[in-house]
Amino acid sequence: MVPCLASRWPARLLRASPPCWLAARVRGTPRERSPRPRSPHEAGRGCCSASGAPEVTLTPQRYAVQRLPFSAVSEQDLAAFERIVPGRVVTDPDELQAFNVDWLRMVRGSSKVLLRPRTTEEVSRILRHCHERNLAVNPQGGNTGMVGGSVPVFDEVILSTALMNQIISFHGVSGILVCQAGCVLEELSQYVEARDFIMPLDLGAKGSCHIGGNVATNAGGLRFLRYGSLRGTVLGLEVVLVDGTVLDCLTTLRKDNTGYDLKQLFIGSEGTLGVITTVSILCPPKPKAVNVAFLGCPGFAEVLQTLSTCRGMLGEILSAFEFMDAQCMKLVGQHLGLASPVRDSPFYVLVETAGSGAGHDAEKLGHFLEHVLGSGLVTDGTMATDQRKAQTLWALRERITEALSCDGYVYKYDLSLPVERLYDIVIDVRARLGPNAKNVVGYGHLAPPPWDEQGSLQCPSLDQRPSGRQHCPLGDGNLHLNVTAEAFSASLLSSLEPYVYAWTAEQRGSVSAEHGLGFKKKDVLGYSKPPAAVQLMRQLKALLDPKGILNPYKNLKNGPVSTSRGATLRRVRRNLWNVVLAVARVLCAGLQWAASSRAQDAPLGGQGPAW
Amino acid sequence: MVPCLASRWPARLLRASPPCWLAARVRGTPRERSPRPRSPHEAGRGCCSASGAPEVTLTPQRYAVQRLPFSAVSEQDLAAFERIVPGRVVTDPDELQAFNVDWLRMVRGSSKVLLRPRTTEEVSRILRHCHERNLAVNPQGGNTGMVGGSVPVFDEVILSTALMNQIISFHGVSGILVCQAGCVLEELSQYVEARDFIMPLDLGAKGSCHIGGNVATNAGGLRFLRYGSLRGTVLGLEVVLVDGTVLDCLTTLRKDNTGYDLKQLFIGSEGTLGVITTVSILCPPKPKAVNVAFLGCPGFAEVLQTLSTCRGMLGEILSAFEFMDAQCMKLVGQHLGLASPVRDSPFYVLVETAGSGAGHDAEKLGHFLEHVLGSGLVTDGTMATDQRKAQTLWALRERITEALSCDGYVYKYDLSLPVERLYDIVIDVRARLGPNAKNVVGYGHLAPPPWDEQGSLQCPSLDQRPSGRQHCPLGDGNLHLNVTAEAFSASLLSSLEPYVYAWTAEQRGSVSAEHGLGFKKKDVLGYSKPPAAVQLMRQLKALLDPKGILNPYKNLKNGPVSTSRGATLRRVRRNLWNVVLAVARVLCAGLQWAASSRAQDAPLGGQGPAW
Repeated sequence: MVPCLASRWPARLLRASPPCWLAARVRGTPRERSPRPRSPHEAGRGCCSASGAPEVTLTPQRYAVQRLPFSAVSEQDLAAFERIVPGRVVTDPDELQAFNVDWLRMVRGSSKVLLRPRTTEEVSRILRHCHERNLAVNPQGGNTGMVGGSVPVFDEVILSTALMNQIISFHGVSGILVCQAGCVLEELSQYVEARDFIMPLDLGAKGSCHIGGNVATNAGGLRFLRYGSLRGTVLGLEVVLVDGTVLDCLTTLRKDNTGYDLKQLFIGSEGTLGVITTVSILCPPKPKAVNVAFLGCPGFAEVLQTLSTCRGMLGEILSAFEFMDAQCMKLVGQHLGLASPVRDSPFYVLVETAGSGAGHDAEKLGHFLEHVLGSGLVTDGTMATDQRKAQTLWALRERITEALSCDGYVYKYDLSLPVERLYDIVIDVRARLGPNAKNVVGYGHLAPPPWDEQGSLQCPSLDQRPSGRQHCPLGDGNLHLNVTAEAFSASLLSSLEPYVYAWTAEQRGSVSAEHGLGFKKKDVLGYSKPPAAVQLMRQLKALLDPKGILNPYKNLKNGPVSTSRGATLRRVRRNLWNVVLAVARVLCAGLQWAASSRAQDAPLGGQGPAW
Repeated sequence: MVPCLASRWPARLLRASPPCWLAARVRGTPRERSPRPRSPHEAGRGCCSASGAPEVTLTPQRYAVQRLPFSAVSEQDLAAFERIVPGRVVTDPDELQAFNVDWLRMVRGSSKVLLRPRTTEEVSRILRHCHERNLAVNPQGGNTGMVGGSVPVFDEVILSTALMNQIISFHGVSGILVCQAGCVLEELSQYVEARDFIMPLDLGAKGSCHIGGNVATNAGGLRFLRYGSLRGTVLGLEVVLVDGTVLDCLTTLRKDNTGYDLKQLFIGSEGTLGVITTVSILCPPKPKAVNVAFLGCPGFAEVLQTLSTCRGMLGEILSAFEFMDAQCMKLVGQHLGLASPVRDSPFYVLVETAGSGAGHDAEKLGHFLEHVLGSGLVTDGTMATDQRKAQTLWALRERITEALSCDGYVYKYDLSLPVERLYDIVIDVRARLGPNAKNVVGYGHLAPPPWDEQGSLQCPSLDQRPSGRQHCPLGDGNLHLNVTAEAFSASLLSSLEPYVYAWTAEQRGSVSAEHGLGFKKKDVLGYSKPPAAVQLMRQLKALLDPKGILNPYKNLKNGPVSTSRGATLRRVRRNLWNVVLAVARVLCAGLQWAASSRAQDAPLGGQGPAW
């Protein structure tokens, strides 16, 4: 039926040169993980080993950021922490290094202490102490964030969830998993897969990332298309508020309309509103049949048409549609030794189906492949029906981040854009930077437009569009635009920013589709959100964290809390001033009375002024 | 293949006696709708015509509720409103009556004015005025709420969205609909269905309910199982805050992780945090093949086993699984003239599939029906493959609410419960009330447990369970428990409440699965939420609506805002008092100094103190 789709990759794909330290770090299997997250330095063995890499510049030395007036950790604080988490207070500078640097080695804090609680109660006592003492806190999961949100900026106390890694319950019929925030995603995946379920999210960093961190950043990932956002699959959360209050929203109900849905506040808040300690999440059943096809496309217009056709012909069994450009393929080959399983093409597409009837699914996929190959949308393709081969194909897409990190310093952008304009920015940026950049690549997830009856794209082709700015509303896609260079360069950065953000705003896109804002994107919120929204965010932050100690310098621009507190203070001052004036008037009237009384009492009877 | 599934209902099902006024009111087609929502009194024509019904008791006369110290609407206010929405200020008492009474005729307010804005700007100006004047506001959509949240309790200004009924844009490829909050759900459905899409939600009240009201109550409905919650399908909202600020979160992006997801605050907040004016929502493509099966089951254990089998054999094409008991069928027959299309059974199940391959879907459904009929889980069944017949089967389930309202005064409960215990409460309540109740019925949506390999229920049958309290974690289902009586009776109410809520809390269920809390359930929030959560809800309310004018007496117990504001006021007063004392000290020192200076100067000719 589809003659050119014979499997033909294994040996070539798996000739893998030693993976770089990032591979080990981010994709390490659970068995390999040491009790504490491994430092990039420990793991450095491969193509871009950190052992030889220069030390990461301290964040305040690279970025314009001022330390807010939090307290510094004292000996008394350390003693108090030791009482709360005995034997789990880390102060050794060497040991701390891995927790101060983000895994992309772009930002570095200078925290002097790391705490490793095991229970919600311990987290509560730690936060209560820090709140009372005005100590800033950096909640840290697997430290796999992309935007510098997971490490301290200055000397914040690092609160690691690494030891909060217990599965509390799993319901073998409903698929509801309740676990502590520090459980590693891949461990959870293996746990539920052994019970015929899958986690509703999957991402490249699964070997290290914690489920609590996933929820705190509202991670999207590779299963978003099929299973939707964590806002739907997370059923409940237990969160410790800044003053130590434990907020138990740990319901396992799929429907609950009693009052405001508080857990939504914490999903995607990047640890700035509270510390997530336990997660209840709905796992979908493991599909009976999974097929993966890897296709080569001659252009981006054909990628979009493949997408539209795909949605039309595969319908409800379509579970992923990923694309990558030729430069991505070059980098995974060059740095990780992975080779393309299909003929060299300008673009590659990975299509996954997941369904309940193997026969029906294979038939649908077969028809689809026949159609796209016959119509020239796809020039070459290969298909996997068993898990190992499917994983091999997925690796090409999943390990791009890793390959990029091996390529040099990476400027990363994670944009939501209308799909028909999605790749234009890669071309624009490539032209703009010229030889200043080593590589400019684009890859990502496309949310497929729903089918039309003909299964074809209902919009003018990219070439036919009369104006570059005209929209063909195919919906938005998630582009990972990445630029590599030998080293960080302020001038390259200034060529990229705010250009990329302004370009995105012009398309009414999002400057952070799934990575969050963290430290590195906090200043660009205004490109995607109007002032009234930013103001309300600040009010929420001020309500939930009035001292601003939770993951400061992240998520909102320029010390949002202080700004917000500043506004509040100004308002309070204005009100107080009015009161003072009123009081002054009353007292002055009293003064007048007293003075006049006194004057009357005085021997020579002088009258005071009329106030 | 499935010999007993021949279609055999049309004539019997459609012998329909004249529907009661509720039918006309709630299911009226868009063409029938008058420019303002019709009063139950106008529409009364059928089996339970309101024209002969006694007047609904004023809410404060039936329930213990005190008017909060809001201003009363003055002539100046009316003049101001007339300037904002000229010709759209309703003060005629007869006309107001329909907007003061909820459609279930259970609660009645006494508002003196209804405003009918057409634009966001008008809503903004109205709210700004009301906020400045401390006038309470009751935002009202289609007034189809189940918990008394959509009508005033006292004399709140009614802010109707009925004229905000414009579709702003619809993208024919992505399926993204942007429309004003007052669009009627059924009109939207017809609009998008003509373009090969469907709305992601569907509910019995679709003929009257507004999309803004749906979002404000986070309505679940009949497509929840397949398309999930509005928290996922609503892409963006425009909301007017209490002071008139327009919050534009009207994105059409499926992925956007820039800052906190503010729209989530307003979804399900029942108009207490802001007024939703525009909605952006993702519509799924119209399935190519839809099949509906209506089945009779010999017991609730068999309903659950059918559910499990169904999920196993139909997988991703299963789009609805509804159940109703024999009493429901009796009532839709008695009051609406609908007859069962299958043999009389203790329970009935409606199964819907929606998929992209008619042949594949029919094959899967055929195998399923053969299996459940063969195994005795189902004793009789019928199937519809065309839209008209499918609608006829759906009517049996959708019109239960209407039939109940024709049966007398209805005590309504909307519970999330573990499915294996779900029907036990109906049996318990029936036994508890005995002849005091006219009918005690149960129906609802079951969230099917994911399949196991055998497609059978992986838990002991209901009869085999050793203890009534032992959970078999099948996930939660949504039970609509309804009790009818000739008229409202306080003693019957006291037999039901808090019994039903305590029963639900014991199962860690939710006392409001999808209807919200509104006025009638606001006091029972504590059965499903812990004190820390309630406290945070109050803080959010105080932050977004400090004067508490937005839909007061709803959603949170006992004047939450006043409580919260009380606390805030106490704090402010304490702080102010300290300041006043400090200022007084300073001024007194000045006074003392001035007086003494004056005393010193007085003899020499009266110089005033230098302040």
